[in-house]
Amino acid sequence: MSIRTFKIASIPGDGIGVDITEAAVEVLQKLSQTFGTFNFEFDTLDWSSQKYKQRGYYAPPGGVEGLKKYDAIYFGAVGWPDVPDHISLWQMILPIRTTLNQYANVRPTRIIPGTSSPLSACVSNSSLLDWVIVRENSEGEYSGHGGTTPSTAHAPHTVATEVSIFTRVGIERIVRFAFETALHRPRKKLTMVTKSNAQRHGMVLWDAVFYEVAKEYDGRVEYDKMLVDAMTVRMVNRPETLDTIVATNLHADILSDLAAALSGSIGIAPSSNLDPTRQFPSMFEPIHGSAPDIAGQGIANPIGAFWSATEMVRWLAGSDGNSNIVGLVDGPGVGNMVKAADCLMKAIENVTQAGVKTRDLGGQSNTKAVTSAVCVEIEK
Amino acid sequence: MSIRTFKIASIPGDGIGVDITEAAVEVLQKLSQTFGTFNFEFDTLDWSSQKYKQRGYYAPPGGVEGLKKYDAIYFGAVGWPDVPDHISLWQMILPIRTTLNQYANVRPTRIIPGTSSPLSACVSNSSLLDWVIVRENSEGEYSGHGGTTPSTAHAPHTVATEVSIFTRVGIERIVRFAFETALHRPRKKLTMVTKSNAQRHGMVLWDAVFYEVAKEYDGRVEYDKMLVDAMTVRMVNRPETLDTIVATNLHADILSDLAAALSGSIGIAPSSNLDPTRQFPSMFEPIHGSAPDIAGQGIANPIGAFWSATEMVRWLAGSDGNSNIVGLVDGPGVGNMVKAADCLMKAIENVTQAGVKTRDLGGQSNTKAVTSAVCVEIEK
Ligand SMILES: CC(C)[C@H](C(=O)O)[C@@H](O)C(=O)O
Ligand SMILES: CC(C)[C@H](C(=O)O)[C@@H](O)C(=O)O
Repeated sequence: MSIRTFKIASIPGDGIGVDITEAAVEVLQKLSQTFGTFNFEFDTLDWSSQKYKQRGYYAPPGGVEGLKKYDAIYFGAVGWPDVPDHISLWQMILPIRTTLNQYANVRPTRIIPGTSSPLSACVSNSSLLDWVIVRENSEGEYSGHGGTTPSTAHAPHTVATEVSIFTRVGIERIVRFAFETALHRPRKKLTMVTKSNAQRHGMVLWDAVFYEVAKEYDGRVEYDKMLVDAMTVRMVNRPETLDTIVATNLHADILSDLAAALSGSIGIAPSSNLDPTRQFPSMFEPIHGSAPDIAGQGIANPIGAFWSATEMVRWLAGSDGNSNIVGLVDGPGVGNMVKAADCLMKAIENVTQAGVKTRDLGGQSNTKAVTSAVCVEIEK
Repeated sequence: MSIRTFKIASIPGDGIGVDITEAAVEVLQKLSQTFGTFNFEFDTLDWSSQKYKQRGYYAPPGGVEGLKKYDAIYFGAVGWPDVPDHISLWQMILPIRTTLNQYANVRPTRIIPGTSSPLSACVSNSSLLDWVIVRENSEGEYSGHGGTTPSTAHAPHTVATEVSIFTRVGIERIVRFAFETALHRPRKKLTMVTKSNAQRHGMVLWDAVFYEVAKEYDGRVEYDKMLVDAMTVRMVNRPETLDTIVATNLHADILSDLAAALSGSIGIAPSSNLDPTRQFPSMFEPIHGSAPDIAGQGIANPIGAFWSATEMVRWLAGSDGNSNIVGLVDGPGVGNMVKAADCLMKAIENVTQAGVKTRDLGGQSNTKAVTSAVCVEIEK
């Protein structure tokens, strides 16, 4: 039997990114040993704020381009108090997303066993909340265009702009991806979010392109439209009416953090930055940040990292081209990897259910204890 | 004793805007009769989507300018399914806000007696959630700049932009207003929200100006900074750590809807669009929309409208120039109006506490019943 080897670039980044990446690598190694049909080779890239301070850059020249040779990228977290955030992010995470064509950021949210939602209604019925947020990940409010004139904040007449760029191509492909995602979910529902009442150019284009693509799915996917402000109300009050959600880069950034909070903890939430064309490697990262306040204490919640690892395995399972939607690989996948992804997710859920949890989930375990418990479950 | 008369433009607008404006006018009349020291003269302006369809405009030519002659504007809601939202809003509510220099949109949120939060933690302790959101109301993401090229959504290469414009003047005045608001609240805390990690021009300017103004308040107001995505998590998980919040036009739009949902119902939440210089009239409106689904049935929750009316009375109480911060008039105010505002708020709370509530609050009363109950309370 041949063993398929995947080359993974691991970028721990800053703060608890380091702790949870280490934990995820351990769990992924255990998974491949247990299954024996696939294998991961990790290259660890020290692109961190500390390195930035020493040498003036995160990724070295050509570094982001160099990621193209990997099968996938595993990312911890970036950001540290003594480097302005807009510098750290524009040097690393944002260029990776755009250079590698990772235009779809997929963020599933549900209440996993042994955890609980802050919403009273979901405490008694955790199945009320089961969403996948599909985030446009390459343009829109994160285009980076704009400027400040004069260049100081201190002139009385200083003006700055942020220019969001929306392309028909960019909207169409993410909307289609979202419809495909919805189509493969049991409830087959898609809610599209914009702010086209107040933002009358790009958001209006988004709406128009959405309804055009939607025609192709008439009768196959149920869809509706929400304004982003009203969407937060619906998420809180009627979570059971939502299934798949598609939104712009900024709106989905905000809504996915809210979704994570409503599902129990930001420490659980996974995120996949996908190039659905599979031309370039995709990137997997928990949605939480570097959490300077608890960094280096060994107490970070590794569940978001593990769940992201699950999504990576599932994505790689489709490497033979039989799926381009994360989480939707139906067949056996390369080297039994769909099974492996299911196994890892089950292991995570058994561990949280058993109460082996970090403090943010109301438990008392540290990162190591949760990691070991998941490894034990994988072997079962 | 002289009676002070205020001229109020009342714009019911669309849908339930009509029901709740009628209710608010009734309650305001009862309040002035009861106190006898002030009086409201209402001019009702029928600037609605229905009128738009008949004659092609909401406000007639010169209509928005004409509002300058009033002491205040009372607004219901605008928007109807058969007029694209970006048309209705850019014809009426957004031009009013900017033309009349209403740069501060103030949105208090708390859990009023007899209502309950969907958050488990707040069910047992409703005092955990007590916020004022100060929204920049004149620029930023609502600047309206940008365009679409080519002008059709259907060309394969269509591109649209949304240009957010942030001015130093605009940021400085709203930040200062927010600090003043915080200074007059018991806890004296201000949280500033941006997304300056991803948006590196306007948001970075916002941060810089914020910290500059903050120096003036060092030792008097406690302040911190949040990213908008993380802010949603904090609102859900640690509501008690927040007090006054200042954010951009779009961010505060989203966060204030979330705040309303977390406090129990969007039907309760008030909003004041203020010109703090008092050169032009300010505008008061509930934050909910026109709710086409329940329009004309007489079941809309008028509490958001009444609370907005309270804020109007409080603002007018400061007409003699003794205050430019809503809700913070300490003295007697013009014609005993601070007392009157307190009386109206107390009446609202007594009614909700007594269980006279609309369906969205879990009650069974209609708009009329709630309105009559509030009028009875005022007279007590
Ligand atoms: C770190 C930051 C740039 C990032 C984003 O805004 O996209 C994060 O919040 C996320 O959600 O992945
Ligand atoms: C109606 C709409 C333009 C408005 C806004 O986005 O400002 C509303 O959502 C609000 O919050 O007042």
